[in-house]
Amino acid sequence: MSIETTFHVRYAETDQMGVVHHSAYVVWIEEGRSAYMRAIGSDYAEIERSGYFLTVTEIHLRYLAPAHYGERVTIRTWLEDVRSRTVTFAYEAVQADTGQLLATGQSQHVCIDRNGRVAVIPPRWRNILAQNVKHET
Amino acid sequence: MSIETTFHVRYAETDQMGVVHHSAYVVWIEEGRSAYMRAIGSDYAEIERSGYFLTVTEIHLRYLAPAHYGERVTIRTWLEDVRSRTVTFAYEAVQADTGQLLATGQSQHVCIDRNGRVAVIPPRWRNILAQNVKHET
Amino acid sequence: MSIETTFHVRYAETDQMGVVHHSAYVVWIEEGRSAYMRAIGSDYAEIERSGYFLTVTEIHLRYLAPAHYGERVTIRTWLEDVRSRTVTFAYEAVQADTGQLLATGQSQHVCIDRNGRVAVIPPRWRNILAQNVKHET
Amino acid sequence: MSIETTFHVRYAETDQMGVVHHSAYVVWIEEGRSAYMRAIGSDYAEIERSGYFLTVTEIHLRYLAPAHYGERVTIRTWLEDVRSRTVTFAYEAVQADTGQLLATGQSQHVCIDRNGRVAVIPPRWRNILAQNVKHET
Repeated sequence: MSIETTFHVRYAETDQMGVVHHSAYVVWIEEGRSAYMRAIGSDYAEIERSGYFLTVTEIHLRYLAPAHYGERVTIRTWLEDVRSRTVTFAYEAVQADTGQLLATGQSQHVCIDRNGRVAVIPPRWRNILAQNVKHET
Repeated sequence: MSIETTFHVRYAETDQMGVVHHSAYVVWIEEGRSAYMRAIGSDYAEIERSGYFLTVTEIHLRYLAPAHYGERVTIRTWLEDVRSRTVTFAYEAVQADTGQLLATGQSQHVCIDRNGRVAVIPPRWRNILAQNVKHET
Repeated sequence: MSIETTFHVRYAETDQMGVVHHSAYVVWIEEGRSAYMRAIGSDYAEIERSGYFLTVTEIHLRYLAPAHYGERVTIRTWLEDVRSRTVTFAYEAVQADTGQLLATGQSQHVCIDRNGRVAVIPPRWRNILAQNVKHET
Repeated sequence: MSIETTFHVRYAETDQMGVVHHSAYVVWIEEGRSAYMRAIGSDYAEIERSGYFLTVTEIHLRYLAPAHYGERVTIRTWLEDVRSRTVTFAYEAVQADTGQLLATGQSQHVCIDRNGRVAVIPPRWRNILAQNVKHET
């Protein structure tokens, strides 16, 4: 299962090459992740309020084609892996009107508590995540 | 006439006070402006392609209440003034679900050409803008 | 007394007009404020650890000339006003090599506590600030 | 050969977890790259003025420890590979005062011309880069 979220490129996201700066995609895939969590009924804002955080331990992005101001971009997000303490998400960024693939990415996360210590993902969240993952371990 | 655009707060827009950082509103009102231009049929991307830019000469923001991750924000944008070379937009940022007013703002712009010289706003764009302004001079 | 901090323009701060995006100045003057606080011996990180925050209630920026990637920018910061609950800073952004004035700005702040309630600035910080202000009330 | 550049964490770079948001490192390593290019006498601003761009095709970041507002961060940058059309940079982000390793990263770039077409890196720049690379091919 993948979730899509679509938005307009913001002018501030462009750079002097006339295209979207590569750092914007890091924020976009995070927004994809937020949309995913909302869609599966596990709002990330609520997870944080319960005292747990899925902190980012790794990101990997490949840029295939540039996005431009005036275009709409769709972020497609899915869960690739859920373990007791870690989660892996994968992403595609697509030009919404043409369907052209702009970038692909992955992010890895580890669950930590309020003190920054690695923690087991609380069962309530882990179950929701596990139901949506491609391959659970 | 005012135009509304609504979006989720992005996690990257928060800061260590636990609320949205005040610089995000500068990007949000710019997105409000983009939505406004699209709505009145004068896509800003198209204006730039024609060789003209409405560069920002002044911004003024008043912050009334904090926005939080997990909330949706609406930016309400209207044209306050259109002159031969300058344009003034005004904005309200509102928590979309409660209607609470978060911030108010204004931005002033001057039309420049590709060489950075102040230019008269091309009649095509000026007419579209002028039809939508509260008070035209 | 004013404090200067100088840095290179970051590529990510440019936009498709080929100049620094106006939102970057909001971050720059905040960095100017941080440098100011460090210089007068009232590190803002320490103020927050003590449970108080100088939250931004208003910003006002006027843009006079564009900054470009490859240039160094100096932010000149001074305290304009300190009252029991509020502080006003003022700023100039200058091209470091030519001395050209790029922008001027002001920010207003109110002291709040951890619960977001308006608070009197603790005497320790207020005294340090007051010694450096142009006009104290 | 590696080049170091050191700066204060900016408040706007923090997020509601109370640490620097992971997207800031993408901007930091780009600033490390800019510092590297300046240090080896091949200012990237000058490369762009000559009509060539080292556009980002891939980034990979691993986050080991969080950075905080009030800290200084050092980005250590080196060239890992230079080929006729591509360049690979590698990075370490270090807490400047304690020496703690915060993150490691890599970025891959392809040379393009003003029309966005892949191009051979002009000999002038390639020679300067090749003299500084660990392993040239």
